[in-house]
Amino acid sequence: MRITALAGGVGGARFLRGLRTHLDATPDLADSELTIIGNTGDDISLFGLRVCPDLDTLLYTLGGGIHEGQGWGRADESHRVQGELAAYGATPQWFALGDLDIGTHIARSQWLAQGLSLSEATTRLAQRWGLPDQRVTVLPMSDSPVETHVVVEDADGQRAVHFQEWWVRMQASLPAQRFVAVGMDRATAAPGVLDAIRHADVVLLPPSNPVVSIGIILGVPGVRDALRGTAAPVVGVSPIIGGMPVRGHADACLAAIGVECTAGAVAGLYEDFLDGWLVSQEDAASVRLPRAQVRGRPLLMTDRAAAAQIAGAALDLALETKRG
Amino acid sequence: MRITALAGGVGGARFLRGLRTHLDATPDLADSELTIIGNTGDDISLFGLRVCPDLDTLLYTLGGGIHEGQGWGRADESHRVQGELAAYGATPQWFALGDLDIGTHIARSQWLAQGLSLSEATTRLAQRWGLPDQRVTVLPMSDSPVETHVVVEDADGQRAVHFQEWWVRMQASLPAQRFVAVGMDRATAAPGVLDAIRHADVVLLPPSNPVVSIGIILGVPGVRDALRGTAAPVVGVSPIIGGMPVRGHADACLAAIGVECTAGAVAGLYEDFLDGWLVSQEDAASVRLPRAQVRGRPLLMTDRAAAAQIAGAALDLALETKRG
Repeated sequence: MRITALAGGVGGARFLRGLRTHLDATPDLADSELTIIGNTGDDISLFGLRVCPDLDTLLYTLGGGIHEGQGWGRADESHRVQGELAAYGATPQWFALGDLDIGTHIARSQWLAQGLSLSEATTRLAQRWGLPDQRVTVLPMSDSPVETHVVVEDADGQRAVHFQEWWVRMQASLPAQRFVAVGMDRATAAPGVLDAIRHADVVLLPPSNPVVSIGIILGVPGVRDALRGTAAPVVGVSPIIGGMPVRGHADACLAAIGVECTAGAVAGLYEDFLDGWLVSQEDAASVRLPRAQVRGRPLLMTDRAAAAQIAGAALDLALETKRG
Repeated sequence: MRITALAGGVGGARFLRGLRTHLDATPDLADSELTIIGNTGDDISLFGLRVCPDLDTLLYTLGGGIHEGQGWGRADESHRVQGELAAYGATPQWFALGDLDIGTHIARSQWLAQGLSLSEATTRLAQRWGLPDQRVTVLPMSDSPVETHVVVEDADGQRAVHFQEWWVRMQASLPAQRFVAVGMDRATAAPGVLDAIRHADVVLLPPSNPVVSIGIILGVPGVRDALRGTAAPVVGVSPIIGGMPVRGHADACLAAIGVECTAGAVAGLYEDFLDGWLVSQEDAASVRLPRAQVRGRPLLMTDRAAAAQIAGAALDLALETKRG
């Protein structure tokens, strides 16, 4: 089976690791191919290095190098390089860059400078993490740089800051007026992205941020059309449980685009292509969608086994939801 | 007093730290200003980062961050970033880059990419190491990239390799046919370099490699003329003791340019501007120079005190050697 997923960082990565666990544990599905289309709107250049937080979280999580407690960054990390950068007065200092993580950024930046595309650089990074052996392919949504900026307003007036500055430095404390995907007007989907959706047997939307992760990927020219046109059922997992985001600042993101922070309202963002919507059991009764099937399940990814169960439930829903 | 020195890496840095110790311990000289013109021919771009080994050795040694036993690199160094680069298959792997050291290279590369000159970036790095407080200024010989390449010959024929590849990877094991300072034809002396020689009270040549350190600096347009024309006495310290280089592969470098590996022959490379030549006691009797005064002293920089004594002896020789 060919499964394609759109994903942001931590939530998406944990879900997809659970999916791979579920597939491997299911004899008929073990040889399934999983293609992940990763959000690159979070990407940022720091100290001249190209940092792709969502792609790296996917690689580290699926490859076994992730800091489990944190959900992002490397296990057994140290911060000696950043200590030096601080001593030299190099800026910015609000984005934590571990030493092992910096190794990834240096390798990627070198390859990009040598003329490789982000797709090609990501393929090289993924090899080290053993993803081909797991039948997992990670594709950036686009090889063109796209950076999500956030328009905020304070006493000094309105200004746009990089998504990471808003998310990490400000902890989303200043209300977002709107999000701008800088570079999206010149972006095209990376090689393989549209075909991975068109030719999939199942398309899954993990519980990633609907605005700044999935929403950004949906803005890449052709992606939304591919989702509407694919013969594969498209099933999503709600990132909102009981009116609250499971993780991160999805509530602040939804407020900025005028969408209620509920499982049903998030499904509305996908209504033109969504066939199935997995929600938390407590939300199941209140969510009614005109053309997507809704199913309630425990949705907290408390550990790997829970993530595998949720992923299995999403896949089951998809397999029951043949497109007409 | 204004003292200007031309310097390569380890030997030059240890000598100059000794000089600063000597100056600080001498009441009349404590407020002397020391300007160091550093060789940048060893510079190399690795993993997209600009690495300036000689400048960094000067900064780390004078700033108290050097790995004392090794003579280059940082004390308490680790190699986690490079381990990652190796795991990703990034190349080259033959040049050891420590984590703390990489912090320097990232900061410098970022500033260069932002449009700062190498002089300006070096000034910023030097601030962290407290060099202004020590009345020490480190200037790169040039802000234009100059890279020493080495023409070697093996079974595959003749080819040019970067100096670092010859020095570090090959350990100078393949005979050098000649050295080429790539970029020198477009290079100019960095701001302050020529004036530091012209307006010095004393010019010193530490026991740095006469071919690939001092020799490269002498090739920067205007430097040699400034040394010939300055009113300051120019005194050097022999890097050769009893026909052997104290450190490094100076013998292989001298062979490539057809110069004997002796204290006297090295002085011959400087004969158009040299006023005093400090040699090892064992060489004193055999070295005769037509226009420079020769003095024998113990020249092994076994510790900081020994380096300070040698530097003091070089300075004394200079102060006795007024130019006509």
